[in-house]
Amino acid sequence: MEKPSLPKGTRDFGPAQMLKRQYLLQTIREIFTKYGFLPIETPAMENLSVLTGKYGDEGDQLIYKILNSGDFIQGVEQNHLQEGYKKLIPKISKKALRYDLTVPFARHVVMNRNDITFPFKRYQIQPVWRADRPQKGRYCEFMQCDADVVGTDSLLCEAEIVLMIHEAFAALGITDFVVKINNRKILSGIADAIGKEGSEAELCVAIDKLDKIGKEAVLEELKTKGFTDSQLTRLLPVFDLKGNNAEIFPLLRTILAQSSVGLKGIDELEKVFTLIEKSGLGNASIETDLTLARGLSYYTGAIFEVKILNVQMGSVCGGGRYDNLTGVFGLPNVSGVGISFGIDRIYDVMNELNLFPSQESNSTRLLICAFDENTFMHALPMVTKLRAQGINTELYPDPVKIKKQLSYADDKKIPFALLIGEDEMNQGLYSLKNLISGEQFKVTFDEVVHKLI
Amino acid sequence: MEKPSLPKGTRDFGPAQMLKRQYLLQTIREIFTKYGFLPIETPAMENLSVLTGKYGDEGDQLIYKILNSGDFIQGVEQNHLQEGYKKLIPKISKKALRYDLTVPFARHVVMNRNDITFPFKRYQIQPVWRADRPQKGRYCEFMQCDADVVGTDSLLCEAEIVLMIHEAFAALGITDFVVKINNRKILSGIADAIGKEGSEAELCVAIDKLDKIGKEAVLEELKTKGFTDSQLTRLLPVFDLKGNNAEIFPLLRTILAQSSVGLKGIDELEKVFTLIEKSGLGNASIETDLTLARGLSYYTGAIFEVKILNVQMGSVCGGGRYDNLTGVFGLPNVSGVGISFGIDRIYDVMNELNLFPSQESNSTRLLICAFDENTFMHALPMVTKLRAQGINTELYPDPVKIKKQLSYADDKKIPFALLIGEDEMNQGLYSLKNLISGEQFKVTFDEVVHKLI
Repeated sequence: MEKPSLPKGTRDFGPAQMLKRQYLLQTIREIFTKYGFLPIETPAMENLSVLTGKYGDEGDQLIYKILNSGDFIQGVEQNHLQEGYKKLIPKISKKALRYDLTVPFARHVVMNRNDITFPFKRYQIQPVWRADRPQKGRYCEFMQCDADVVGTDSLLCEAEIVLMIHEAFAALGITDFVVKINNRKILSGIADAIGKEGSEAELCVAIDKLDKIGKEAVLEELKTKGFTDSQLTRLLPVFDLKGNNAEIFPLLRTILAQSSVGLKGIDELEKVFTLIEKSGLGNASIETDLTLARGLSYYTGAIFEVKILNVQMGSVCGGGRYDNLTGVFGLPNVSGVGISFGIDRIYDVMNELNLFPSQESNSTRLLICAFDENTFMHALPMVTKLRAQGINTELYPDPVKIKKQLSYADDKKIPFALLIGEDEMNQGLYSLKNLISGEQFKVTFDEVVHKLI
Repeated sequence: MEKPSLPKGTRDFGPAQMLKRQYLLQTIREIFTKYGFLPIETPAMENLSVLTGKYGDEGDQLIYKILNSGDFIQGVEQNHLQEGYKKLIPKISKKALRYDLTVPFARHVVMNRNDITFPFKRYQIQPVWRADRPQKGRYCEFMQCDADVVGTDSLLCEAEIVLMIHEAFAALGITDFVVKINNRKILSGIADAIGKEGSEAELCVAIDKLDKIGKEAVLEELKTKGFTDSQLTRLLPVFDLKGNNAEIFPLLRTILAQSSVGLKGIDELEKVFTLIEKSGLGNASIETDLTLARGLSYYTGAIFEVKILNVQMGSVCGGGRYDNLTGVFGLPNVSGVGISFGIDRIYDVMNELNLFPSQESNSTRLLICAFDENTFMHALPMVTKLRAQGINTELYPDPVKIKKQLSYADDKKIPFALLIGEDEMNQGLYSLKNLISGEQFKVTFDEVVHKLI
């Protein structure tokens, strides 16, 4: 007999996990909505040509391809086999699973450009698939949760992303976090200032590893990328620019005095801070981090990351501004800014910090336990009335031993049980048991409703 | 330049559709929860071996297979190509997209049998994929929405499914519908009674087409399946058994007098009706339909379908009781009963009948329009305060022409706009415009909050 299993890197979510995930996603969804973001969804399957070439060579390898239906080897010749699997793929596969939400979003914007009102504020919460080697915290199928505004350069969007992050974490009960912010134009300016104009990409990729491999190794990597000793010497003080904006920005303006793009980056960053401050954000946890780089990516302005401070965990949110979302699909100059919430990591943090509320409100509140067939029938209209009052109610489907019924309630974390034996039925006085405290009361039906509503 | 497109049979959902879909699914989700069902989710990708052989030969063809990652043709020989594509599939594909929610649910139950509390009431709302030829109302990627109770024979589960359907349609505003109910044991009994013991399957497949092809064609099909004229003559009166249960059941008991399984089917059906009646369902729209068969399927007891009467549309819900959900995975005797809501069809019906509420509560309520940079900055803390009151608020990200800002509000169906010019700012009296009625008032900030809360 076949013993079923799950593909590596995939997961089932049982009810207890699902209730937590629903709470987490619903909380974020409501905050997105409060800020004017509206949902879209795109299909899991995209045309392979839409995805190919968007994620670099390595990314292309990690896209799951779907075999054409029917006789997929029709037209495949013997010699095609010898040319290797990469050349064979487009012959036997036309579709693939989405790899992220950004490329499908770009495709959606291009295909619907005439119907979309810009600025377009959309959020999207859907799974993505990557044929990556699974490891702790890395899955082949996982949820992404993105919000983007496209079609405007306004720095209010950056500011609102920072506000939204604060509101989301406050709502989730996560208090000890910091939003790190930087600007790619500043990193560009730094490359200019140390005499390596145009080397922003190499600089970002290397700096991005600072946390992981340390300063020495980063400098070593930059050396192999052609940065000279004197350039690196000029870079070092930038790493050490720490403190609040009033301390950092004046020094930075001096360092970047000759780089117009660098100065523009500082202006943008200052404006974002001003907009946040004017918005009246209390308890702001924001920090300019000149070593925040976000690696290889298409960002051109502000970049963000969120770190949670009281747990061991990489960044839980990341995002930034980009200049050209849809250029690859023939629609140039669509700029925007987005943020992505790392749902799996935030879930783990909340579990570790015990921040999920009890599941009560989203599952059964009351189990009615009947002692026999008679009381079972007596209970039927009660169930209907309780549900009509909005109380999530179950009647145990068979009048089996009460112990078994209560054990069901226990496993399902149902907080109340109503016991109905012959006496209870005849007197109209039922035993309401609080399964958390163990207390038990004799109550009329109306009192049950009143107590649980 | 590449012009992007969607794979045939797949869809994007923009914000307007998504808000409706969220409303529809959330309504059903809340009712599932009220009845004690809890959510699970399974991965889109299952091992191909888990899915193969569960849906018949035709179904196997319609499963989307995922190409193995990396060098998938390693080990594939020239002669494998000649053996045809079917034999090649397991060599180059180990994973596939789920085809329905039932098989993954069965797999989940088997893999978690020791942790699950039975009876297990689960719901699952996730997309499934079928490599079917797309046509109107039939997609290659679509949402399924299932609720099942497994691990109990109690007929209360059948009754509660009928109650739940009534509650769901009432909540959605669909009033003109009928739940058709039958029992596979009765169909078995009918096969017995007409002298074709064991031919229930052929009978069901043929009867299932009654609506589509008519009585004559059904009889013709049964003839080709070996039903004799005299058997068909005995079958005919059953088709014509119409009316309420008090009329049907006595006649049916006579017809099935010699079939113990048939009589058991009648008993079950009567019990379900009794449980529904005792539960006090008002305005019940239930009808015994002896020609309801649900085609080729694994049902063994009650079967259901829901028809909406005031629109042209096939059945919008279907389900039934099964004896052996998990036998194929080595866990015998797990019986259960389930219902599946046809989300796409219900969505279309609600659109046609104009049953979706306005999207207001789930999107932006107020757009603040600033005339210039000064008033824009003035508006920032107002936005924060409005959001803190739970009012979904946007500030247009640039102080561009008011006409453009209002056109944004219009496109996004935002019901209110707050206009802030220099005078308004200085006087603390803003212009609140109702964008639906066109009315405009001068209001203080507190009045805005009060009006929109």
